[in-house]
Amino acid sequence: MLDKTPSTKVTEFLDKFGSALEAGDIEAAVNCFQADCYWRDLVTFTWNLKTMEGQDQIREMLKATLAKTKPTGWKIAEGEEAAEDGGVTTAWIEFETEIARGFGMIRLKDGLIWTLLTTMAEIKGHEEKAGFTRPLGAKHGHGRDRKTWREEREDEMAELGHSRQPYTLIIGGGQGGIALAARLRQLDVPTIVVERNERAGDSWRKRYKSLCLHDPVWYDHLPYIDFPKNWPVFAPKDKIGDWLEMYTKVMELNYWSATTAKKASYDEAAKEWTVVVERDGKEITLKPKQLVLATGMSGKANWPTIKGQDVFKGEQQHSSTHPGPDKYRGKKVVVIGSNNSAHDICAALWEGGADVTMVQRSSTHIVRSDTLMDIGLSALYSEQAVESGMTTRKADLIFASLPYRILHEFQIPLYDQMRERDKDFYAALEKAGFMLDWGEDNSGLFMKYLRRGSGYYIDVGACDLVIDGSIKLKSGVDVQELTKDGVLLKDGTLLPADLVIYATGYGSMNGWAADLISREVADKVGKCWGLGSDTIKDPGPWEGEQRNMWKPTQQEALWFHGGNLHQSRHYSQYLALQLKARMEGIDTPVYGLQEVHHRG
Amino acid sequence: MLDKTPSTKVTEFLDKFGSALEAGDIEAAVNCFQADCYWRDLVTFTWNLKTMEGQDQIREMLKATLAKTKPTGWKIAEGEEAAEDGGVTTAWIEFETEIARGFGMIRLKDGLIWTLLTTMAEIKGHEEKAGFTRPLGAKHGHGRDRKTWREEREDEMAELGHSRQPYTLIIGGGQGGIALAARLRQLDVPTIVVERNERAGDSWRKRYKSLCLHDPVWYDHLPYIDFPKNWPVFAPKDKIGDWLEMYTKVMELNYWSATTAKKASYDEAAKEWTVVVERDGKEITLKPKQLVLATGMSGKANWPTIKGQDVFKGEQQHSSTHPGPDKYRGKKVVVIGSNNSAHDICAALWEGGADVTMVQRSSTHIVRSDTLMDIGLSALYSEQAVESGMTTRKADLIFASLPYRILHEFQIPLYDQMRERDKDFYAALEKAGFMLDWGEDNSGLFMKYLRRGSGYYIDVGACDLVIDGSIKLKSGVDVQELTKDGVLLKDGTLLPADLVIYATGYGSMNGWAADLISREVADKVGKCWGLGSDTIKDPGPWEGEQRNMWKPTQQEALWFHGGNLHQSRHYSQYLALQLKARMEGIDTPVYGLQEVHHRG
Repeated sequence: MLDKTPSTKVTEFLDKFGSALEAGDIEAAVNCFQADCYWRDLVTFTWNLKTMEGQDQIREMLKATLAKTKPTGWKIAEGEEAAEDGGVTTAWIEFETEIARGFGMIRLKDGLIWTLLTTMAEIKGHEEKAGFTRPLGAKHGHGRDRKTWREEREDEMAELGHSRQPYTLIIGGGQGGIALAARLRQLDVPTIVVERNERAGDSWRKRYKSLCLHDPVWYDHLPYIDFPKNWPVFAPKDKIGDWLEMYTKVMELNYWSATTAKKASYDEAAKEWTVVVERDGKEITLKPKQLVLATGMSGKANWPTIKGQDVFKGEQQHSSTHPGPDKYRGKKVVVIGSNNSAHDICAALWEGGADVTMVQRSSTHIVRSDTLMDIGLSALYSEQAVESGMTTRKADLIFASLPYRILHEFQIPLYDQMRERDKDFYAALEKAGFMLDWGEDNSGLFMKYLRRGSGYYIDVGACDLVIDGSIKLKSGVDVQELTKDGVLLKDGTLLPADLVIYATGYGSMNGWAADLISREVADKVGKCWGLGSDTIKDPGPWEGEQRNMWKPTQQEALWFHGGNLHQSRHYSQYLALQLKARMEGIDTPVYGLQEVHHRG
Repeated sequence: MLDKTPSTKVTEFLDKFGSALEAGDIEAAVNCFQADCYWRDLVTFTWNLKTMEGQDQIREMLKATLAKTKPTGWKIAEGEEAAEDGGVTTAWIEFETEIARGFGMIRLKDGLIWTLLTTMAEIKGHEEKAGFTRPLGAKHGHGRDRKTWREEREDEMAELGHSRQPYTLIIGGGQGGIALAARLRQLDVPTIVVERNERAGDSWRKRYKSLCLHDPVWYDHLPYIDFPKNWPVFAPKDKIGDWLEMYTKVMELNYWSATTAKKASYDEAAKEWTVVVERDGKEITLKPKQLVLATGMSGKANWPTIKGQDVFKGEQQHSSTHPGPDKYRGKKVVVIGSNNSAHDICAALWEGGADVTMVQRSSTHIVRSDTLMDIGLSALYSEQAVESGMTTRKADLIFASLPYRILHEFQIPLYDQMRERDKDFYAALEKAGFMLDWGEDNSGLFMKYLRRGSGYYIDVGACDLVIDGSIKLKSGVDVQELTKDGVLLKDGTLLPADLVIYATGYGSMNGWAADLISREVADKVGKCWGLGSDTIKDPGPWEGEQRNMWKPTQQEALWFHGGNLHQSRHYSQYLALQLKARMEGIDTPVYGLQEVHHRG
């Protein structure tokens, strides 16, 4: 008897799984799963971003959602084949629900599902117009007094927010707000983005001058228009600023720059927000149905309270407002903090001729950027990956298919390799006194990022300066107080300073909600970001997904968007579809709305 | 005995051909060709764009160039296979010369070459940095006082054209100048583009308001950044303007808008141009080594001399300066001409409520835009083509591989199909009195474009207005004179007019050279465009390539760039390489420099 190919096995399995679902036979469907199993659903079943872990959670989810979802047509995705490796059979899959088309990935072990990822690709009848369905453009035929494209755009820009209201208002015009707005436009959801800076891209331009992206280009593409093949691996901030600026233009976004959101409140009866923004010195009231905060996954600046801050004669800044080294040549600068911003800023200050000391109060996870790119990302996001057929979409989905609960297990071996490869580097750092860590479970940078959004530095050169003492280091010591002349540490050291920079991180994004809406609403939605891993700065209980990000929150019609360029790109798709569905009056019963365990 | 596969046959053939070339055995190489054969070389052998027709011309070319070119390594291009169809075996090929890497296409009939296309892909040691060799971007490591990307760009913009001179100056910042400048930057050739309009893209924005591209999007991509998948098929002029504007920014072009070139002269001894431009009211003298006129393949406006033009009381415009219909509602407008601009303008005027008459003095070739897209372009430039694996590069090369001498033979059957598909449409046009043609040999639109750049209209709706009389038509009649009130035709008809528009075409591009440089230089280089086909407006003798376009001219260091978006994109590659080679001091002996038979 001939062995079945992986594709045949998967096809037969999907037929069985699909039949059980169509028959409403939940037990049979659950029995298609391993005992140790994960089903991550992005919108299709749950109208949420939700990971079900184990058969019990899957059973509960299906009981609540199966009858309404009506999934059918499970098959290996067109043009794909299943593959078998190390006992795991993997395949890209397609399926449909009553209202959507789905795409995902399945991993089988011993003929049962280990991991299943189901994502919403598009809503039937509301597909984006691209490729074969791209708009015609030229108005063929003729019509007296019909408007040109430019006139239509001008009308839109004159009306939207004035004589007619946007369905969605996005506050924050960085890469997150921009990516989401682009998706929403392609779905014909009238949207305005408000950005307080003068120009799109300023959120990058205004940062310290040596800033470049720390993530490599293949990881960073925006939706619809990739960076070209000659774009640098790590783009300088001004190049990114220019790209974002042109992107808002050619993707036809309704982008209100130099506009600040002042106040927002939700009318539960009218199901509508009232948002007051200030633009060109005038207050304008907008009434969107949906409000998205895309103000950056870093919330408000954490400005620590330290005795003597009112006594200190020099300047004090947070890393987010530090303008760069130009005015500090020959000056003494003390930087409190030892993570990403601290390193970038210390290096830039040294380059600009300042006398700089870094105060490290707790350990930092360091990884060299080329090592991270090679070992951490290259399988999915690299020139080699592209050359062997990887697409950004697939890379994003492969990443999304790894359950958060076990993601650290995949990461640990990679970081073991990195530790080995760069051991001399780490030895030199420790010799200089630097306190290193690898994350509590040695799972490294990306888990730290997902859990707490901080606590690491991707080294692009500052470490050499720490190693050789060009950047002076005081480590393992906390600040006692500021004196009028400098920083007094708890070990008695006095660091004279003209400038003290608090590279001390940010609060949770819901801090912006407190300012803009109310403390009550901010508390109602709770802390953003983090997985509930019970590690430093990510207290339990386990959430299984990023708190509040890209999905329904406890405040109706309030959403949070953000993250790095990869997340801004990928998760904007699902957030845009959730908003589109609501606009079209499609029923969106949310399963497992995230409960709030922390106020932020 | 097993039949050899097409790939095996081609590989064996290439081994034989390559060996003959390497041995310097010209006769053996020539004998690899059919009697009826064509070898089109883009730069690699000839440092020219040249088609050799027949064995004798090939022999002569090899005698002159083979020893220096040193071609080797002929093989089927990596990842490709040969294909056999209808007695013709076709394959993508790669080869090397002493200084370059080549790419091309071969077509064999009965084991001998029918057509050979050889193109220069890159110069060894001067490859563009992209993909695996894309720049790093972030300056890793550290260096005191080193400059950021933005500072380097600012320095470049402050210096280039002032304290240091560009190698290449491009006059004309439309899609041609922009595409060429982008290629040159990727090859590190310091280049300035001067554009008289205020903003990049204005050459489109300022056109009549209903203007859209008549070529579909897949045909129109610029180098390096494709239009996205949701870009319209026929882009409205303002969208194109915006794209060009952002492209100049993100591709880091040194683009001097609001800058007019006043005078240029070549110093034969210093091998350098002196070009005076006016920018912000100041005259600046530039000294590039190479000068490119990218002012548009349409040269200066043809403004016919007609008796009574000084008597006519109303307005007179050329199509190129017509602002659109807004001021002419209710007015009488007479448009002299019946080709592309005339139809677009008449339709826009009708839509704007004007009373418009088209005066057709000679026949016009008409094809409907969707028919042209379907039958004329879809094999190479369409969503279907993309889906079946066609790339823009391959489409461009396939098109380039069809010898101009026989191109019409490929075109005639396509236009027969178009004539049949739209026969009712054509009957209705003729019933309205419109004079139709199909090109002298029925080879249709693209041949007309290549031969004379005029004489056709791609219908996007104006024809229906001619058919139903909304656009009034006087055909088969010429203009006698203008009276003070209107246009008197030779058949005695008087057409009252408030505005007369001369949609009467353009002169040859070397008319710009006459204005900018001198009549002598303009005559020295002669007429641009056309193949020498001995058809209307394309007098012989046969050139075999576009006169003066994208290749060396009789004036050292003077070049012409332009054409439609496809040509701007594709031929900018070869022009950029020819300029790069000269900058690097590589020997570029031009074979078969085009002689001048017509002054323009």
